[in-house]
Amino acid sequence: MDGPSTAPLPLTRASVQQAHRAIATLVHRTPLLSSTSLSHDAGYTLLFKAENCNKSGSFKIRGATYSVACLTDHERRRGVVTQSSGNHAAALALVARDLDIPAHIVSPRTAPAAKLAAVRAYGGNLTLCDPSIESREAALADVQRRTGACYVPPSDAVNTMLGQGTVFLEVEEQAREGGWGKLGAIIAPVGGAGLLGGIAVAARGTGVRVFGAEPAGADDCVRGLAEGRRITDFKPETIADGLLTPVGEHNWPVVQQDVEKVMTVTDEEILDAQRLLWQRLKTVVEPSGAVAFALARSAKFRELRVEGPVCVVLSGGNVDLDVPPPWVKA
Amino acid sequence: MDGPSTAPLPLTRASVQQAHRAIATLVHRTPLLSSTSLSHDAGYTLLFKAENCNKSGSFKIRGATYSVACLTDHERRRGVVTQSSGNHAAALALVARDLDIPAHIVSPRTAPAAKLAAVRAYGGNLTLCDPSIESREAALADVQRRTGACYVPPSDAVNTMLGQGTVFLEVEEQAREGGWGKLGAIIAPVGGAGLLGGIAVAARGTGVRVFGAEPAGADDCVRGLAEGRRITDFKPETIADGLLTPVGEHNWPVVQQDVEKVMTVTDEEILDAQRLLWQRLKTVVEPSGAVAFALARSAKFRELRVEGPVCVVLSGGNVDLDVPPPWVKA
Repeated sequence: MDGPSTAPLPLTRASVQQAHRAIATLVHRTPLLSSTSLSHDAGYTLLFKAENCNKSGSFKIRGATYSVACLTDHERRRGVVTQSSGNHAAALALVARDLDIPAHIVSPRTAPAAKLAAVRAYGGNLTLCDPSIESREAALADVQRRTGACYVPPSDAVNTMLGQGTVFLEVEEQAREGGWGKLGAIIAPVGGAGLLGGIAVAARGTGVRVFGAEPAGADDCVRGLAEGRRITDFKPETIADGLLTPVGEHNWPVVQQDVEKVMTVTDEEILDAQRLLWQRLKTVVEPSGAVAFALARSAKFRELRVEGPVCVVLSGGNVDLDVPPPWVKA
Repeated sequence: MDGPSTAPLPLTRASVQQAHRAIATLVHRTPLLSSTSLSHDAGYTLLFKAENCNKSGSFKIRGATYSVACLTDHERRRGVVTQSSGNHAAALALVARDLDIPAHIVSPRTAPAAKLAAVRAYGGNLTLCDPSIESREAALADVQRRTGACYVPPSDAVNTMLGQGTVFLEVEEQAREGGWGKLGAIIAPVGGAGLLGGIAVAARGTGVRVFGAEPAGADDCVRGLAEGRRITDFKPETIADGLLTPVGEHNWPVVQQDVEKVMTVTDEEILDAQRLLWQRLKTVVEPSGAVAFALARSAKFRELRVEGPVCVVLSGGNVDLDVPPPWVKA
C-alpha cells in the first residue's frame, strides 16, 4: 500500500521529541489526574493521563496528526484513507476536516455505532465492509485505486508510533509541574502497540519502567513474547473493542526490546476498572481505556514493587451513551 | 442552632482570598477544561471548572472544609452535624473523617441512594428522617442535644459562602495560566446560593459578569428577584436534586446586589447538557452539575453578548452509576 513518501524518523527519544514539537499545538495537552482514594486503595500514587479527553476522544489523534503532518503537500491534497473500526477512523477524519482534505474510512459493519457516527460527524467518507480481513483489504485497495488517497495506518507505522509516544513526554512534564516528581512506571493498553511502543521509545534512558496491559481475550502480545514470535492468527474475544488487532510489525521489536513486561486482565477486571473511573475520577472511559488501570489495581502488578508514582494511560472515552453502561445488568 | 463561635469574616474579595489560603492544600485544585467543539457550537470560548472532580465529588468540600477550619479546637472535638440530602452531607463526612472527629448527618429517606452510600462510606453517622422540613429539623435538634455537635449548614452561612467562593479565585488563575486571558463571565447553578453568592463576592471589582442558572422547576431565586423578596414556600420539581433548597438568608442580599442576572433552564435542557458533557467532555456530572452549561448553550444567554471566555461551573458529579443515565429511555 502507498505510504507517505517522506522517510520516517528513526525510533529514538529525540524523534518523539521532534514529533511533539510538530503536533503540540494541534492536539490537546490532556490533564494528568490524580485521586487520593484510588491511590489509597492501590497502595501507591496513581496518576491518570486523560487521553479520553483528547480531540476525537482518544490518543489516536496524536499519531494521525503526526502522520498527516509528515506527508508532502502533494500527497496531502490527494486525501487520506484508512481502515479502522473505531478511534483511529474518527481521529483521521477530524485531522482531515481541519486541513480541508478528504478522508476515506473503511470500517467493518460490526464497528460500534457511536464510533461510526463520529466518523460521519467529522465528515469522513465511510465505506462499510464485511468484518473479515480480506473484505477490509479489498475495500481499502479499491478506495485507494479510485481516489489516490494516501494510506495512514492505525498503529503499524513508525510515524504513528512517534506520534503516540508524545503522551509520555507530556506526562513527564506534568508530573514535574504537579510536584509528583519522577515517575516510577507507566502502563499503556496494548492492541496494535502503537501507543505502548511509542511510549517505550520516549521512555528510553529515563529509568521509568514501561508496562503493557492486554485483555485476556486478545492476549496475542503476551503469548507472542513468551513464544518469541509475533502472533497474528487469533480470534479476539473481549469487551475492549479498541484492542482487537495483533501487535503491528513495526511495533513488535520495540515491544520486545523496550517494554519490561506485558500482562493480561480479564473482562471482569476491565469492567470494574471502567466503573471505578467513572465513579471516582468522574471521567468517561471506554473499556479499552480502562485496561491499564485494571492492571494497576491487580495483585500481580503490586508484586512488581514499583517505586514512585505509577501513571496509567486512559486511552479513549468513546462509548455509546444512549445505552446503559456495560456493567449495568438489564 | 449552635453555630461556630468564631466571628465570620466580612463578605469581601479579601475574605474569600483568606478562605482560599486556609483550604488550598485541603481541597483539589480542580481542572479548568476546554472543548473546541462545545465552544464552536456555543459561539464563544467556553471553560469548564470541574468541581465534579473535587474531593467527595462536588464543590461542597470547599465550604465544609472552611467552615470546620473556622471552629475552635473545643468545638471541633465535639464533632459536626448537618442536614442535607446529598453532596454537603458527603463532603462534611469526609472532612470529619480526615480530622478524626464524628460527623452526624440527618438526611431524608428519599435522598439519592448513591449520595447516602457516600456518607456511609466516609464513616458519617446517618440519621434518616421523613422528607418534611419539620421532621428534618426535629431530627437535627435531637442529634445536637444528644451529641453537642456543632451545626455546619449546607449553604446558608457566611463561612460556607466564603469557602465556595474560592472556586472563582482558582478559575481566574487557571484562565491566566492557560492563556485564556480575562474571563468575560462565570455561570454557577443556584440552589441555596452559597456557590453563586461566594463567586459573586470573589468577583467584586474584577469586571467579570456573574450569572446564576436555576432549574425552572425550582425557580425561587428568579421569582424572588422579580418580586424583591426571598421566596421559601414552594414545592420544587426538577431532575436537579442538588438545587431544591430556597436561597439562604445570608446569601440572598449578595445575590440581589452582586449577581447580574439569574435565568432558568428546563429539565430537558439540563438533560441535554448533562449528556453532552459526558459525551464530549468525557466528564461525569450530575443533573445539577449541568445546569450552568445548559444556560450557557441557550439562546437567551447568547443575547447577553458576553465578551471574553465564559466559565461554567460543573458543580457535582455524584450519580448512581448502577442504573442507566437519566436520558436513556427504558
